[in-house]
This record gives sequence, C-alpha cells and structure tokens, in this order.
Amino acid sequence: MTAAKPGLRHLDVDLAIVGAGSAGMAAYKAAARHTSRLVVIESSGYGTLCARAGCMPSKLLIEAASRAHAIRQAHRFGIQAVGARVDGAAVMARLRELRDYFVDSVIREAEAWPAAHRLTGRARFIGPCELQVDDHAIVKARSIVLATGSRAVVPDAWREAIDGHLLTTDTLFELPSLPRSIAVIGGGAIGTEMAQALSRLGVRVVWLMREDAPGGLRDPALRPLAIPLLSEGITLITRAEVRSMAEAEGGQARVEFDANGERGSAVVDKVLVCIGRQPVFDGLDLDKGGLTLNKEGLVDHEDRSTRVGESCVFLAGDVSGAHPLLHEAVRDGRRAATQAVAQPGPPHHLPEAPLEGGRRTALRIVFCDPQIAAIGRGHEELTRSHHPFVTGVADFTDQGRSRIKDMNRGALRVYVCRDRRVVLGAEMIGPCAEHLAHLLAWSVHQGQTIDTLLDCPIYHPVVEEAVRTALGHARAQLAGQATMRPASPLSACADMGIGL
Amino acid sequence: MTAAKPGLRHLDVDLAIVGAGSAGMAAYKAAARHTSRLVVIESSGYGTLCARAGCMPSKLLIEAASRAHAIRQAHRFGIQAVGARVDGAAVMARLRELRDYFVDSVIREAEAWPAAHRLTGRARFIGPCELQVDDHAIVKARSIVLATGSRAVVPDAWREAIDGHLLTTDTLFELPSLPRSIAVIGGGAIGTEMAQALSRLGVRVVWLMREDAPGGLRDPALRPLAIPLLSEGITLITRAEVRSMAEAEGGQARVEFDANGERGSAVVDKVLVCIGRQPVFDGLDLDKGGLTLNKEGLVDHEDRSTRVGESCVFLAGDVSGAHPLLHEAVRDGRRAATQAVAQPGPPHHLPEAPLEGGRRTALRIVFCDPQIAAIGRGHEELTRSHHPFVTGVADFTDQGRSRIKDMNRGALRVYVCRDRRVVLGAEMIGPCAEHLAHLLAWSVHQGQTIDTLLDCPIYHPVVEEAVRTALGHARAQLAGQATMRPASPLSACADMGIGL
Repeated sequence: MTAAKPGLRHLDVDLAIVGAGSAGMAAYKAAARHTSRLVVIESSGYGTLCARAGCMPSKLLIEAASRAHAIRQAHRFGIQAVGARVDGAAVMARLRELRDYFVDSVIREAEAWPAAHRLTGRARFIGPCELQVDDHAIVKARSIVLATGSRAVVPDAWREAIDGHLLTTDTLFELPSLPRSIAVIGGGAIGTEMAQALSRLGVRVVWLMREDAPGGLRDPALRPLAIPLLSEGITLITRAEVRSMAEAEGGQARVEFDANGERGSAVVDKVLVCIGRQPVFDGLDLDKGGLTLNKEGLVDHEDRSTRVGESCVFLAGDVSGAHPLLHEAVRDGRRAATQAVAQPGPPHHLPEAPLEGGRRTALRIVFCDPQIAAIGRGHEELTRSHHPFVTGVADFTDQGRSRIKDMNRGALRVYVCRDRRVVLGAEMIGPCAEHLAHLLAWSVHQGQTIDTLLDCPIYHPVVEEAVRTALGHARAQLAGQATMRPASPLSACADMGIGL
Repeated sequence: MTAAKPGLRHLDVDLAIVGAGSAGMAAYKAAARHTSRLVVIESSGYGTLCARAGCMPSKLLIEAASRAHAIRQAHRFGIQAVGARVDGAAVMARLRELRDYFVDSVIREAEAWPAAHRLTGRARFIGPCELQVDDHAIVKARSIVLATGSRAVVPDAWREAIDGHLLTTDTLFELPSLPRSIAVIGGGAIGTEMAQALSRLGVRVVWLMREDAPGGLRDPALRPLAIPLLSEGITLITRAEVRSMAEAEGGQARVEFDANGERGSAVVDKVLVCIGRQPVFDGLDLDKGGLTLNKEGLVDHEDRSTRVGESCVFLAGDVSGAHPLLHEAVRDGRRAATQAVAQPGPPHHLPEAPLEGGRRTALRIVFCDPQIAAIGRGHEELTRSHHPFVTGVADFTDQGRSRIKDMNRGALRVYVCRDRRVVLGAEMIGPCAEHLAHLLAWSVHQGQTIDTLLDCPIYHPVVEEAVRTALGHARAQLAGQATMRPASPLSACADMGIGL
C-alpha cells in the first residue's frame, strides 16, 4: 500500500488494462460486461497498430499494387493499356486518407468510454498489483492486463548508420510518395507483402532475407513454389545476412550483405526493416510488479489463461510475444479480461474461469499474390509428432476458375488424420487463399471429417473446387488408392468428389 | 421385345444414359463403379453446356469485363491506366481459346471411356425400357437415365422477326467481336451477368426485364439494393413486356416494349435473350416410353430419387426442369445413376437405395459485381412457413476490408432459427459473395449453430468479418437485445463477435 501523496489520485479497481490497442480495447469491452470498476491506461493516444500501421494501411498499399499489376496484365484478357502510371503521392494520399478514417473510428470508440475508465499517461509497476500513472495517479488493481503491444525490431547499428533511410511499417505509410528504390529486409509475412506491393507500384526492390524462401511457407512441397511465384520483377537474395549499412553517394544508402558465401551490396533510397516485432515493456518497472523477462526478453505466462504465474497480471496481444495477429490479439484481450474479472476473491488465487473458445485454430494469411495461408497444424509439426496423416493435394495450374482468372498458380495441401479422417491442417499458396483458408479453418476448428466436407455443396466454377479436389485426393489415399489423380479442369466440370 | 432387324445392333444393358453433358457424364462415372453393362448415347458430340456455352465462357467474359472496369476505377487508388482500350476481337478470341480448351478436356474424358460404352446417334423410346439409336442400335436397358439437357427459350415470333440479330448464350460466345449495342432480355442470373459484363466491355446495353429488380434477389430488404448497384452505365427497364421485334434501318433491330404503362422501343445491333431454359425432349418419343409431359412441359418425377413414377426412367440435370446449375446437374446425375444401378432386380421394382448426400442445401451465385448469393432457405419461404427466425444483418458500406478494396456496397442477411439457433439460410449482394456463400452453405448444410460459428477463427482484415457481424447481430436479437449495432469498420478492428 502506498501512502497518499498530494496531487495523486488513488484508484482501487477490479481491473487495470495497460495499453488501449486492439488487445486492450477487446479486454476493456469484455471486462466491462462484468464490472464497472476498471480503468484503461494509455500513454500515446488511442488508435491501434492494426489501424495505424498494420493490417489496414498494408492492405491499402497492396490493393493499389494489385490494381497496377492488373492493368499491366489486362492485355491477357483482350484489354489493351499502354501502361500503368503510378502516382506515388496519390497512392499514399488515398492510403492515409482511409487509414486515418479507420484510426479515427477506433479513437472515437475509445473516447466514448466513460471518462472515469480512462487514464492518460505512462504506467509503471510500484507493487505486485499496483501501478503509478505518470505523477498523477496510483491504481491498485485486483488484476492487471498488460497490453502494451509491440514495436518493429531495428538493430541499433543500422539505426545509427542510416537512420534517415530506415523505415519500418511504423513509418513507411507516412512517406509523402513512393521511393525510387528500396531494400526490404526480411522474408516473413510483412516483408513478403511489402516487397511485392512496392515492386508492383514501380519501386525497384532488392529483397534480402535469411530464409531460403519468402512467405513463411512450411510444407517442404510448397516451399519451392515460393521463389518463382513471389520474386517476379524483384532482386531477391535468400540466405542473406546483412553485414552493415552506410550512407552512400547521392543521398542513398548502401546495404552490405553476405549470401551463399558471397559478398554483395545494394544501393537504394530506403531500407524497410521487417525482421520481426518485439514486446514493449518500456518503463513498466516489471521487477516491481514481480515480473521478470526470460532470456528471449519475454514474460513467461500460461498460454491458455494468459496469466503470468501466480501473479495478478495477464498478458494480451503482441506483448505476449506470440504472432502479432489482430484476430489473436483481440481473442487474447477478451480471454485475459474474462479470466481477470471472472471471479471475485483475493487476486493471487483467481479460480480458473471457463475459457471462451478454448481451442484455438491457427490461421495465418499472407496477402501477397498468390496469397499464402496456413491453417491448423502444419506438415512439419505433424511429421515431427509422428501423427498418422495423409496429404490431399490440389494443383491450381489446371484448376478451371483459377485459369479463367489467369491466377492458375500454386497448390493446396490438406493434412487429414488417418485414424479419425478429420482435417488437421492445411497450407497453400494460390488464388483466393484468404477465402479457402476460412473454409478450411472452420472445418479444422469444428473437427469435421473429409466425408462430411465432401458432402457439402460447392458451386461451379469456383476456386473452392480445389478444396474438394484436395479432400478427394486424401480420401482416395485413405481408401488405399495410391494413384494420384492428375489435375485437370475436368475436376471442376464433371466431378463432384467421387470417382477418384 | 423387338424382333431383330438387319443392320441393327442389339444391346442389353443395366443402364442406358441419354445425353453426355454434365449430368450424363456424372451418371456414367457413378454407374461405372457398379456395372460395366452400360451405355451412353450422345447425338451431337461430346462437350457440356457448362464448358461450351455456360459457366466457363460466361465467367471468361465477366473476367475480361471486370478487368476493364478495374482499369477505369484504378484512378481511385492513385493509378492511371494509359490508353486503355477494349479490343473486342481479342476479348472474344481469349474467351474462345480457353473455352475450347475446357471443351476439349471434357471431350477427351468422354472419349477415354470404353468404345463399347458409347453410342452415337439420336435416341428415341420404342418401349418402356427400350431405346432405338438412329437406325443402327436398339438398347434394352434395365434403367434409363435421361440427361438430354436444356436449351434457351426463344419465342418463335422473335426468331421469325429478327433471327439474324437474336443471340442466346449458345451463340453469344461465337461472335467474332463485341457488338456496339445490345438489348438484353431477362433479369435472372444470366441476364444480369451478361448485361453488366457487356456494358463494362463498352457495349451500349438496354436491359429489359419483367421483374422489378435484376439478379433474382428474394429478400425484400435486399431487393431495393439491386437496381442502383447493378444498373450503372446501363439503360435498365424493369417491369417490361416485349411487344414485338423487327428489323430496323442500318442493319439493326428494334425491340418494342411496354413498361409501367408506357410504350418504348430500343434500336440495337443484337438482342440477347435470357428468359430461361427449357428441357430438351426432341424426338425422344416419350409416350412410347410411357412418359408424359405435364402442363408446364416437364416430366413429373420424384425429387430425391429423380425417378419418373414407377418407371425405369430417371431424370438428371437440366432436363428435370430444375435450376440449370452445374453442381446440381452433377449431383443429379450421380444420384440417378446410383439409384438406377444400385440393386439388381426387375426394373419396375427397384428398391430405394440410400441417397448419397441426402440433404441438398441450395446454393446460388450470380457473378455480377457486387456478386449475389442465396444459400439454404430464403426469407420468403421461411416467412411463408411461419418458421420462427431472426435475421442477422451486415452492411458492407462500412466493412473495413471491403472499403479498402473500394467494394463497400451491399448487405448480407443471415436467417437463424429462434429455437435451434442454427443458420437456416442467407442471402446477400456484396463483395466476395461467392466465397462467403460457401462458408455459409457449409454451415447450413452441417446444421451449425451461430454459437459454434462465432467461436470459429476469422482473420483480419477480411470480408468474412461481415459474416461474424451478421451472426453476432442475430445472437444479440436472440438474447433480446433489440438495438441494432451500427455498421462500423470497428466491427472489423476491435470486435470478435461479442459485446454486441
């Protein structure tokens, strides 16, 4: 207990939420159903990473890029266009206009919460269940949800060498126009989306990654597809290690790297760093809250409840160090808040509340072209755990509707349990992956068998027919039919999943 | 029994299939798993309506149109298309090239069947279970699957008046280039798809329909959206009755019509008739097979088994007079064949075989922009049958991803059973309807409750979030919360379906 100081407000609440991003907002909304004794502490203004610098602006850039690409490809459909002229300033202006609209709507929502529930300032622990906010408030909370988010990782050496050229997605979308050239560092989801989008918008892109293939595909049969499908028009250097960065002539930056035993360098206007995000714990004085960082710089916590040990602290969203995904941050926030306020009682002995949506089905989508999606359990994990499964395959090369759309590239692989015939997971690179991924993720989440799914209606001609092809291929294997059905547009036209 | 005639082959089979379209091919493949004593009789060469003049070429035209439209809209994303021009001949050439590829693949499949299973010629009944094929074969069959398909309806008077200007989808795709102007007659799926596609390809379109709105939307809350969303750039005349057609000056055709009590006329190069399709029974001598046409010109049959009364005849595909939909034709064909060959025994006393995929979940998609989809049971049907249900609504106007894609138009309505909380059906006009429709159709088919569905993962930012919005709205109503949640991009960013 802290003695009262002059000028300090003292609050005693059921729940304090630190951070009003996606996870914190979701936590607030979930908790507000159970208690009005709660407070959200935000230091840097409302508005989520998602809306400000994440999902929304990145999709806006990708959408513009896909329009430019479509114009260049239109001749394949009998539409002639001399060329696509990309007005970089106009692209960025539309992006920011809509981005700001999204941010404003988030801010309006937070500002509509009761003023008594909102504190502005930096929170720091002054005790296991006690926070101080700047110099104006002390909050004693039965439970605390930490939702302070994440920031892009940028090595200090790079920052020191070429700070004026360095971009992350936190700053990329603030550019007044598009650079002429850029080095994109990182082969994960964000690097993949941005490298391709910028290239399609006419930016010269040098793309460096440690990985041997972009896009984060895990299935060894899909990984080889990534490079040819995703590097068109791009200087792609895999297995690259950045050695140094330096200012170069003409106001540019030079990136030196090793790749495959060779040295190389690229001179570019800008360098976009997409090598990951790290949790933000700045100034939280975690130790005073009884929390410690592990050797990865994360706070250990129980995965399902999000609770940190036996403490009163729950983690929600990116700060937990999991994948920075909006839909999981929101679920985390809701879950943490539900756990944190579900039961009255002494803070250190919260009973386990029932978890809403106990099972979590992984769902990852990369919005490149063709899109990448991973659903449920992966090929590697299933193989490692010796789970008996078969892989049903659909090749998009000759898939009817994909061919009509001139998007007949990539493949879908669905993992089916040999014993229970349920879909365990799937991975794909191909057209409409974001949509097929939901059909598959719902099926995995619900524990559906391939037999149930093969009885479900599929229209024609649609890309969803590839799901049926893959499921049918899996069923044929389970029936001991080793022969692989050749991919054919017929599989769309005259086959409804039987007769394999 | 027919006496042997010289030059006539006599065949005695378990199953004769008349017509090798989508339904006939599916019937063949299903039956061939059970018997090798079967024959397919085709009079006019292999290749399905779907591939030749239906799903595939229409989607090819739509794809070209959507590219042309995207180019015109690109400026909204900051992209200027320089010198965009629709090359009608090139559009049609690409369409036919890919169309022929699809047709060829169908033909190759049929030609790979054993020669003994294929008869070429016109079939006609010469007895209840006996067919003659031209003058060269007599087929005595334990069961017969009629899969003779359908043709576009064109009134004789129109044909006589302006035959050279009249088109159906059977002939549209054979045009060497695009006409300058066209009257599209009919507001159903095909009329809607073709009117919009042709307009977007630069053809001046006059669109006449009896209906008060295009696209076949049934939900009274959605119907008013159809006209503003689907008539851009088109002269749309609803509640129109064509009075006459005649040749006009300059090699054109004049269409005279009544609409809303007024007379009107349009002078155009071509007239595309999309007022429906009718079953083809030409020269079948149905009466000798013991079959009769009802007053609608259809053959009555049992809906689930597709069997005609107590006869040995089963109907499959368009000939049954149902909606001409590929995926249903294929299912029909499979079902008819399975029924027809499932059990040995006298032809008139076939026991009922178990029906594969007993329940049929309706799934209709119109590939206009925004797309239209209808799933499961409709609003009208549910209202008429006094089924207790609530309607969960999602408005796309402020749906996050739809706004990013500049496709934020339309609405989704999901019908949820008050008692069992299952999704009964849905209807929508909006972005990505073909994909959302599958998610919903599978949910309806599987009998999922909204509670299960609201626990399923949805990524962000995706159009699928609208499904969650609609389901959440339905759940709020079931919980007695009458207030309707205002549509907001927040529903995408910071809400996972609870907290409504």
